[in-house]
Amino acid sequence: MRGWGGRALTSAIVSKEVPPTCHPLSAQNKLVIAPGLLSGSAGAMSGRISVGCKSPLTGGIKEANAGGQAAQVLGRLGYAAIVLEGKPKDDTLYKVFINKDGVKVLPANDLKGLGNYKTVEKAKEEFGDKIACISIGQAGEMKLGAASIACTDPELRPTRHAGRGGVGAVMGSKGVKLIVLDDTGMKMRSPKDPEAFKDANKRFVEGLRKHPVTGEGLPAYGTNVLTNVINEAGAYPTFNFKEGRFAGAAKISGETQAETEKARGGNPTHGCHRGCVIRCSGVYVDKDGNYVTKQPEYETVWAHGGNCGIDDLDAIAQLDFLDDDIGLDTIEMGATIAVAMDAGLAKFGDAQAAIELVKEVGKGTPLGRILGSGAAVTGKVFGVERVPVVKGQAMPAYDPRAVKGIGVTYATSTMGADHTAGYAVATNILKVGGDVDPLSPQGQVELSRNLQIATAAIDSTGMCLFIAFAIMDQPETFQALIDMINAFYGLNMTADDVTELGKKVLAMEREFNLKAGFTSKHDRLPDYFKNEPIPPHNVTFDVPDEDLDQVFNW
Amino acid sequence: MRGWGGRALTSAIVSKEVPPTCHPLSAQNKLVIAPGLLSGSAGAMSGRISVGCKSPLTGGIKEANAGGQAAQVLGRLGYAAIVLEGKPKDDTLYKVFINKDGVKVLPANDLKGLGNYKTVEKAKEEFGDKIACISIGQAGEMKLGAASIACTDPELRPTRHAGRGGVGAVMGSKGVKLIVLDDTGMKMRSPKDPEAFKDANKRFVEGLRKHPVTGEGLPAYGTNVLTNVINEAGAYPTFNFKEGRFAGAAKISGETQAETEKARGGNPTHGCHRGCVIRCSGVYVDKDGNYVTKQPEYETVWAHGGNCGIDDLDAIAQLDFLDDDIGLDTIEMGATIAVAMDAGLAKFGDAQAAIELVKEVGKGTPLGRILGSGAAVTGKVFGVERVPVVKGQAMPAYDPRAVKGIGVTYATSTMGADHTAGYAVATNILKVGGDVDPLSPQGQVELSRNLQIATAAIDSTGMCLFIAFAIMDQPETFQALIDMINAFYGLNMTADDVTELGKKVLAMEREFNLKAGFTSKHDRLPDYFKNEPIPPHNVTFDVPDEDLDQVFNW
Repeated sequence: MRGWGGRALTSAIVSKEVPPTCHPLSAQNKLVIAPGLLSGSAGAMSGRISVGCKSPLTGGIKEANAGGQAAQVLGRLGYAAIVLEGKPKDDTLYKVFINKDGVKVLPANDLKGLGNYKTVEKAKEEFGDKIACISIGQAGEMKLGAASIACTDPELRPTRHAGRGGVGAVMGSKGVKLIVLDDTGMKMRSPKDPEAFKDANKRFVEGLRKHPVTGEGLPAYGTNVLTNVINEAGAYPTFNFKEGRFAGAAKISGETQAETEKARGGNPTHGCHRGCVIRCSGVYVDKDGNYVTKQPEYETVWAHGGNCGIDDLDAIAQLDFLDDDIGLDTIEMGATIAVAMDAGLAKFGDAQAAIELVKEVGKGTPLGRILGSGAAVTGKVFGVERVPVVKGQAMPAYDPRAVKGIGVTYATSTMGADHTAGYAVATNILKVGGDVDPLSPQGQVELSRNLQIATAAIDSTGMCLFIAFAIMDQPETFQALIDMINAFYGLNMTADDVTELGKKVLAMEREFNLKAGFTSKHDRLPDYFKNEPIPPHNVTFDVPDEDLDQVFNW
Repeated sequence: MRGWGGRALTSAIVSKEVPPTCHPLSAQNKLVIAPGLLSGSAGAMSGRISVGCKSPLTGGIKEANAGGQAAQVLGRLGYAAIVLEGKPKDDTLYKVFINKDGVKVLPANDLKGLGNYKTVEKAKEEFGDKIACISIGQAGEMKLGAASIACTDPELRPTRHAGRGGVGAVMGSKGVKLIVLDDTGMKMRSPKDPEAFKDANKRFVEGLRKHPVTGEGLPAYGTNVLTNVINEAGAYPTFNFKEGRFAGAAKISGETQAETEKARGGNPTHGCHRGCVIRCSGVYVDKDGNYVTKQPEYETVWAHGGNCGIDDLDAIAQLDFLDDDIGLDTIEMGATIAVAMDAGLAKFGDAQAAIELVKEVGKGTPLGRILGSGAAVTGKVFGVERVPVVKGQAMPAYDPRAVKGIGVTYATSTMGADHTAGYAVATNILKVGGDVDPLSPQGQVELSRNLQIATAAIDSTGMCLFIAFAIMDQPETFQALIDMINAFYGLNMTADDVTELGKKVLAMEREFNLKAGFTSKHDRLPDYFKNEPIPPHNVTFDVPDEDLDQVFNW
């Protein structure tokens, strides 16, 4: 595993050292936190941190990654990974402090029951503000299936989350509330060939600036630029995946959001970590200009918005804050609340009711614990049949019937339903990296396969996945990335080697899942996606099962 | 499927007609209710009714059977099975009335939210008392994973339940609250060869009366005769499967129970259906002689008793009544409450707290819905690692580490953890049908295999499983059973044919589960049974995985 980073490293450690049949909350599980190959260097976009474990939500292997400062700081501190093992004897909570002098594990019972924001405030009081924090909120402490792990952004706000798969519950099961990283006194990591690295990095940055998605769309509007696009495409899951277009979309679009932020004195263009040149994050403020939350991402705006019939950006921002503070995956929570709405717990469109439901999770009431356990459990407990999950994980913001490539990714990813595992939306809808008709079953398997391989590799570099738009369309930008890694490590990697790495990572993950009991039957969407057409295109998911079984047959 | 009854028929219909990947609460699932081959005849012990479907609890195929009058009455009415298909358009509740004139489906919204006892009272008011009822309580209406289906006993009390696997939730999802059977005007079913049948039946009954278990132990004390036996063997799961002996066992034993019932004017010897000659059921009354519930079975007394640290028979009887009334599997509920106690929701031994928790289910509060969803969901929602389930279904009253044969059955049964699927306790502990050391891993696979095959066959005859004690020890009693079936249908079945039938049933069930996504990895106990020794014998479950994979390799 020498020389591996990010997802390659977390998945390698988990698949080598964690018994696939162990209980995800048991001492046998491990939580692996790994920065990328170039984290801590001067390389642009190298700010993702991977979190791996056996997932309490899916029961399979999990890698969830986050932006924020943690990857860069942990990289500078010289760590390839933090591994939390075993289980505490009692219910004492701990915090871990890492700086140039080493690692300290300290009791932290005073942090019990705090949200991420207060937890980070306490960390600042104790360790100063030259730190990066990795923490869990109440949801992680309660070991809930939707619990995330928060990483702080450059302003020390716990806004960047390794959200999916309940990784926060595993951190909670290890009794660790907070990891504080302080790289004071540590230098930036230096490449083997500084000149070549600098040159490659320059070409890489130019490529990102040149591409319309990373150079214009994302900086101006953030990821929420997608609301209008996906809604227009008829692939915007509305009312718990019952319709493909939402009447209120314009009210919660990225354009409206950026305008609102600007008018109120917020900021629609912000980088979530040092070294980001895309700057797709932002700051959402209230009518009086006070900070509410970071600019909610497209998937969050969808999950808490259109999927629940809610068209109020301020309410969505409040939900985003609550999720970040309690430590919850916004996708899982939005999907869960829509299922709860189908169960009659609230009316679609009732923003205040949605806010109260998320607050329940923070309080740890029985209802809160149900919701915090995610959409699948909520569906079980309330007897709801239409629950949009694969391998127990909720589907994100693209209806798989109207963007069939992403449907293939949802169905077959080692991670459960996950758009980032092979973002076919790029080619199906945005026409990046080619053009495959989103409504046809043709060509989706190949598309998803190639993207899943590429993504597994990118996730292992620690690079932000948004570089993919530029490297898919611009071969010279892809070459610049490879040149950066080669110059940094003194390697001679080719594009084929990158593909091989991606395949190796996926193969490890598939093997873990196989040993954990997954079969081809788990590489499927719920039956209703095959039987229930979604308007406006009135399409079902019709990629044949036999084709799905070919995704990993390369 | 011509000429098949009971479990053979339910499993055949489910595996032929239900898509294995469908949602258990969807229109695609079917609820099949089938009496046995000799139900409705003069044959002794032919009172079991099988209920089959895809299980909402396990996600696999399910057959749960019950005593009571339903099988006999449905048999006389001439039905091989009732099949509930599809799904109602709205939330109207229905009742089904079947008599000599045919079938009527009637609205029954007045029964909404009623427990089984009140539901049956209403049925009596409307249809008189010459009926048998099949019904669900609030749990089934809420479609909870622990929801049972109740059948009435000869006194028209809803006390005999098809308990396991959430079959009540499937009945609820079909919108059917109640099935009323009235065989007025119908004759007993007559055999092809009445004389041979009568003779075989006589030999059969003699065999049952002669065997110490069916002739003495069960009539005198009911199934609860096992408390002292299993506790003595160190295999009595106590405090959520943490110890193998319970200090309070004597206070809740069958001996104490029968004595209490007699002293108060109850009845420890009672048949749950017409034609029963074992008479292991009974009536539990309070200090003033008022009916509380039917005599709680051993597994119920264990689940709500020792497993929760409770040693109060009156409290256990109240819990049994609540389960019957709300329509809950007593095994699943006892296991669930013990998990909830591990989660800190109540203290082990606190009977009043346990009663309040079960009442929550009836009320349909969020906490009640969690608990009513069973042990696996409760463990997930409350972050408990030690949850004694296989395939999502809770283990019954025998610790698999100290009775390893039953551990093999729990692990490998198509049904999830289920003692009745292959009752190795008989041979491991009671020394019926041979003697296999319960603490050794040797010989358990063969024992469980043979018992699972035999059980699948017996469950298909509609005979009470308790005939197994006599037919395992007394070849002439087994022959008498075969002779009965042959005389009734004009067949020439041999013992080998019976074995073949059992194998055929298991093979169908295995195939369904395979298509539903089950693998050998699901034929395992939770890891902690392999790692955590149980006192007093300090044994772990050490039957090798490779051996478990040989159970169905005949």
